[in-house]
This record gives sequence, C-alpha cells and structure tokens, in this order.
Amino acid sequence: MCQGFKFAGVASGLKKDGKKDLGLIYSEIPANVAGVFTRNEVKAAPVILDMQRIVSGTCQAVIANSGNANCCTGEKGMQDAISTARWTAKALALSEEQVLVTSTGVIGEPLAAEKIQAAVPDLVNDLDPDRISDFAEAIMTTDTVPKVVSKKGNLDGKSFTVTGVAKGAGMIRPDMATLLCFVMTDAACPSDILYEMLLKSIDHTLNRITIDGDTSTNDTALLIANGLSGAVINSNAQNRQFQPILDEVLMSLGKQLIKDAEGATKLVEIAVKGAKSDVDAYRIADTIAHSNLLKTALFGEDANWGRILAAAGRAGVPIQPDAIDIYFSDVWMVKSGMGCGKKAEAEAAQILKQPEYTITIDLKAGKGVASVFTCDFSIDYVKINASYRS
Amino acid sequence: MCQGFKFAGVASGLKKDGKKDLGLIYSEIPANVAGVFTRNEVKAAPVILDMQRIVSGTCQAVIANSGNANCCTGEKGMQDAISTARWTAKALALSEEQVLVTSTGVIGEPLAAEKIQAAVPDLVNDLDPDRISDFAEAIMTTDTVPKVVSKKGNLDGKSFTVTGVAKGAGMIRPDMATLLCFVMTDAACPSDILYEMLLKSIDHTLNRITIDGDTSTNDTALLIANGLSGAVINSNAQNRQFQPILDEVLMSLGKQLIKDAEGATKLVEIAVKGAKSDVDAYRIADTIAHSNLLKTALFGEDANWGRILAAAGRAGVPIQPDAIDIYFSDVWMVKSGMGCGKKAEAEAAQILKQPEYTITIDLKAGKGVASVFTCDFSIDYVKINASYRS
Repeated sequence: MCQGFKFAGVASGLKKDGKKDLGLIYSEIPANVAGVFTRNEVKAAPVILDMQRIVSGTCQAVIANSGNANCCTGEKGMQDAISTARWTAKALALSEEQVLVTSTGVIGEPLAAEKIQAAVPDLVNDLDPDRISDFAEAIMTTDTVPKVVSKKGNLDGKSFTVTGVAKGAGMIRPDMATLLCFVMTDAACPSDILYEMLLKSIDHTLNRITIDGDTSTNDTALLIANGLSGAVINSNAQNRQFQPILDEVLMSLGKQLIKDAEGATKLVEIAVKGAKSDVDAYRIADTIAHSNLLKTALFGEDANWGRILAAAGRAGVPIQPDAIDIYFSDVWMVKSGMGCGKKAEAEAAQILKQPEYTITIDLKAGKGVASVFTCDFSIDYVKINASYRS
Repeated sequence: MCQGFKFAGVASGLKKDGKKDLGLIYSEIPANVAGVFTRNEVKAAPVILDMQRIVSGTCQAVIANSGNANCCTGEKGMQDAISTARWTAKALALSEEQVLVTSTGVIGEPLAAEKIQAAVPDLVNDLDPDRISDFAEAIMTTDTVPKVVSKKGNLDGKSFTVTGVAKGAGMIRPDMATLLCFVMTDAACPSDILYEMLLKSIDHTLNRITIDGDTSTNDTALLIANGLSGAVINSNAQNRQFQPILDEVLMSLGKQLIKDAEGATKLVEIAVKGAKSDVDAYRIADTIAHSNLLKTALFGEDANWGRILAAAGRAGVPIQPDAIDIYFSDVWMVKSGMGCGKKAEAEAAQILKQPEYTITIDLKAGKGVASVFTCDFSIDYVKINASYRS
C-alpha cells in the first residue's frame, strides 16, 4: 500500500441495515491533491464544498459517507458538509480546510449529521494503513463487493505505489468522473500536474465506462500525492512513467465497477475501428454501449447484431451500412452489413455465454478507433432500481 | 371510416406463431401522399424504396409485413421489396410505382418473400372498407393490441375523416417518425401541403413520445389523401382546420403506442415549464423521459424525485437547482429544489399507482414549455427484449 496513508470505515447508522457507511482517508503529512467533479448542473453540497477547497491544491484527509447523497438538501445540507469536515479536522488536529467531504446515497433526504458527529472519534481511532477494505466497504451503496487496486511503479530508481478505491454501481455514465473514486500515491507531485494526469487518465478509463447512462450529482474523483516514497514527479519524462500506472489503476477500477454494475452479468467492450476519426468512433461506441435494446439482448445471450447496426446508425455520424463488419470476440458475425449465417450464430452464442468479451465494429472508412465498456441490462437492474429508496 | 379506402390483413407465415403478418391499404382512386422516414443511417430496403417512390407524390396502395424488417439484407432485400410491390400491383391492376412497401420485425434475416407472393391474392381478395383492424393486427410485432383511431372534421361545409393506424412497441424514440404509422384521409390535398402538415404534426406528437430511446431502421409515417369526401385543402386557412384533426389522430396513436409499450404499466407526461426557451424545455423533458433510473422508479411506484433533478441536471442546459418545483399530478413534491416532506410523499405514492399521470418540472426561469410522453421501465421489458429473436 501507499506509504503514509491510513484508512478506516465504520457503521454510523446512516445505512438502515447497520452496514459500514462512514469512511476516512488520512495522510500522515499534508498532501497535494487534484479532483474532477460531476458536470451535472445539480451538485451535492459536499461537491460544491470540495470544488472550493481543492483550489488550494492540498488536503490531508477525506471523509466519505454512504446512505445519503446530501444533495438537494439546501442550506442545512451545506452546513452539514462543513460540520462534517470540522468534526473530522478537530479529531485529527488539522485545519478544517485540509479535509474534503464526499457523500453517496439517496438524493433529497436530509443528512442525519449527528450520526456522523457521534461516529467520528471511533473512525479516527480506527485509522490504520491496512484498513483500506473497511473504507471501500463504507462507501458502497448497491455495490456487492469493495473495489480496491494497487500498482507499483519506479521513478529514478525510487519505487512508488498508486492505490485506488471506488464505488458504483448505478447512475453511471462517462461524464468527467464516475461516482466516488479515490486514488492515493506516495509519489510527490505538484497539484497542477496531478490534475493534468488525472484528467488525461479519466478520459480513457472512467469516461469510457457506462452502466445505465445516468450521471450522478455526487461524482468525485480525487488524486492525492503525499511524496513519502521519495519518488518525485516534476518533468514530462517522469510523468510519462507515472501516467501508465495511473491509467492501469483507473481502468482496473472502471472494469471492477462494470463487473459489479447493478444486476449486470457481463462486462462487454464495444470496440469501434475504421471510423473517419477517433471522435466518430467514440460517438458510435458510446451510442451502442447505451442501447437498452442491445443491453437486454446481451442479458439474454442473443447475438442480435441488427440492434448494434441500428444503434450505430443513430449516433449522428455518417456511416456506410453495407461496408460494416462486426465481430463477437473472434467470431465474424456480420460481413459488409449482412449476417454471416447459422454457423457464425452458433459460435457467437458460445461467446455470449462468457462473462467478459469484446464486440468489434469495423466501419472500414478510416483509422479512427475507440472503446467503451458496458454491461448487460438485466431483470435485477429493474428490481434494484424500482425499490431503491424503500 | 375514410371514404374510398379498403384494408386487409392475413397470415402469410412470416410470423412463426401463425398470426396475421401481411397487411394492405388500398385507395379506390390514386391518392396524394407524403411520408416521413427514419433518420437512422441504417435504413431497411423498403424505406429506401419508398423514399424514391414518394417523390412522385402519389400512391394507391401500401403493403406492410411484420415478422421481418427486411433490413441489412443486401441486394436480395431490395429485390424482395421491389417484387413485393410488383406482386401487389399486378393483383390490383396498378402500376408498380403506385405501391409503397413497409416492413417491421427482426433485422438481418433474409425475407421469405415467396410467402408474401403466395399470400397476395388472398390479401387483395379480402380488401374491405371495414377491415382496418385486420390490417392493424397484421403490422403488430410485440404490440399486444391493435392501434387505430378515426376523427371527423369539416371544411367549407363538407365533412371529412382522418383515420390512423400504427404499431409499436419497442425501439422507439422521437426522431422524425416512430415505426409504422399510416394516416388516411378522404379530404383532397396536394402532396406538398400534406408533407408540411405531417412534419408539423409529428413534431408535436410522435416526436414527443419515447419508449426505450432506440430508433428503428424502418420508421415510416405516411399521410394519404384521396379526396373522395369532396372536402378540399388548398389554402392556409383550410389547412388550419385540418391540422388540429391530424394532430389529434397522431397524438392518440402516440399515446396508444406508449400505453402498449413493451412491458409498460404507466403512461407518464414529463411536462417542463418555466424554461428560458421551448428548446431548453424540450431538452430537459427529453433527458428526464429517457432516464432509466427514473423509469425503473416509476415502475416501482417510487416518487424518487432526486432522479428527476439529476436527469434535468445532465440535459446540457444551465439550470438553477434551488429554484425548481416538481409536481406529481397536482401534488407539490419539490419546492425550490427541496422535498416537501412526508405528507407530499404519501400523496404522491397514490398518484404513482395510477396508469396515467403528469410530472411537471417548473424551472422558474422563463416561459419555455415542452412535454415528452414516456413509460415506465419494467421487468417485462427486459424479458421481452432478452429473447426477441428466439
């Protein structure tokens, strides 16, 4: 794990079922930080607070609660977010500006902040370098498993670690960030470079996953660097050594999110190639990845490639339907806009039973490529979301 | 019913279950016609054929099949569409250019055109002014009920009738037309005025309904006028008397489509008001109407208004969340961006049990208004679409 970071997660009573719902990340020394937040016009109170505080470029602790989004909660909601940071700062003997706050859960219900206040001493007491899984559990909503990943890298002979933790599992589409995601590193790095690297990485990782096409009011991704490993990032060449590690961490978290998506049974890469540009390829991949008709067919393990072409055709990009090839993994399913017949169907049926596979759409019009990762759309997704608040 | 129009519907064997799958509309005299077609880049063979033929502005018959979309079927598909028109024309003693062809069903499977050829004589033989319900049945795919509506109007003392028939029930979003829709009138009208009126009407009716956000490769809406009532449309004032009748017919069909949407249990109007412009209002209503999270909550009869605000916030329109009011029918649910409490929740719970209701979102920022009609997203939608081809 990253040097100098400690974690904790406890049950404060915000979740009705008594599960962990309050988490804390603490760096032993002040760290540099960068953040990316939801682009939704409706922003939760803690998002608004963090967007103000992160301008300083430093923080030393992040407190996160699940069970309530503290969104659409008015003046009291903002006061609750500020108080949460203040109680945490006091228990850690920090200035309150050094504490960021994140929340996730139901929108529009007042936060029972007194439960957080009562639990903060225990939370601080539990801080431990090895308790990241407690933290990961404490931020879960409809997630069924905690999501943590750690990768090691090297800069000028000094090894460093990048550790990420995130939660899903619905209200997710690629739009700047995706719900709550915290990445810690013991490399040293100025906050403006952290921000550049985080943006660049998210663009090809978290912004390429979708579950249901809805974006959250609470999306927050933070990258926190405390420098305790001695590894230092301050030039482009060194960034290039850090960036791929960060990409790996965020892509791993992204895939973990999709695999644990509400009701999902499949992780499917929609890979578009042969587009006139990468932007065109992305638009088509994104439209296919969001098609409810395709996603229900994937749930049914039905190689309904007509729905892929129909979705590609409404992406707002000119295409030549009778040029298009489609592959399910390595099975050639559609050749020049027409089905490859019964044998291909039978082979594709086997691919569709797998938990992970790629659907490749070759437009044969250029060199543009893009991938979006999606999941199937199941009966359980509907069940989970029909009764989320009850 | 409209004077001079005859209808038929038979089972040709295209549908595996032996239900009606081939329909015919015939006008006793050549009629003027206008059509609106899918904007999907992937267009079925009959759509491509009709787009060529409709340029003449006249037609006398429309043959429609369900059970196969004749889309992504290559050269053979186009030949099958042409042959279908030719067989029909021969049996009716018409020129083949006077016959339009529409198809709906699975994409990407070759059309068993020989079944159509064999059934055409029976189909023509069955033509009758009173058999529109047979035609309506013959174009059904996942629809559970046929959709027909008739309205009467008056022009210069001469009464006329507008009769519409349509099919759903999935792969529907507002994008120029919505699957197959045929509107007949016995008023007389030049085809260019028919086109203007059809476009104008669709913009506020069929283009304001959504089921699942996917658009079809086969969308076709036709307006056919044979003039046999003696009523004549040829000036703006007279158009204004015809337009509202056409609007009524298309809105009725649109609502019938939503009520019979795949798996749907609710017809919900998303009414946005107080936007800076009608375009802003439409964008927000459209985004809310497509939110899977809201649609699953509506299925669960859960007044989860946070999901309405979250969807409004990602519509790409600047909004002031703490100004927004939301009503479920006449229940004031959200006031200035915050929930109205337990009493409102209890009242809203009663509204959500109804089969039809309106959700009103008041942005309090201007005079822009727009409505989009949507349905809930149910377990049955997933079941229907997970196994559509099997």
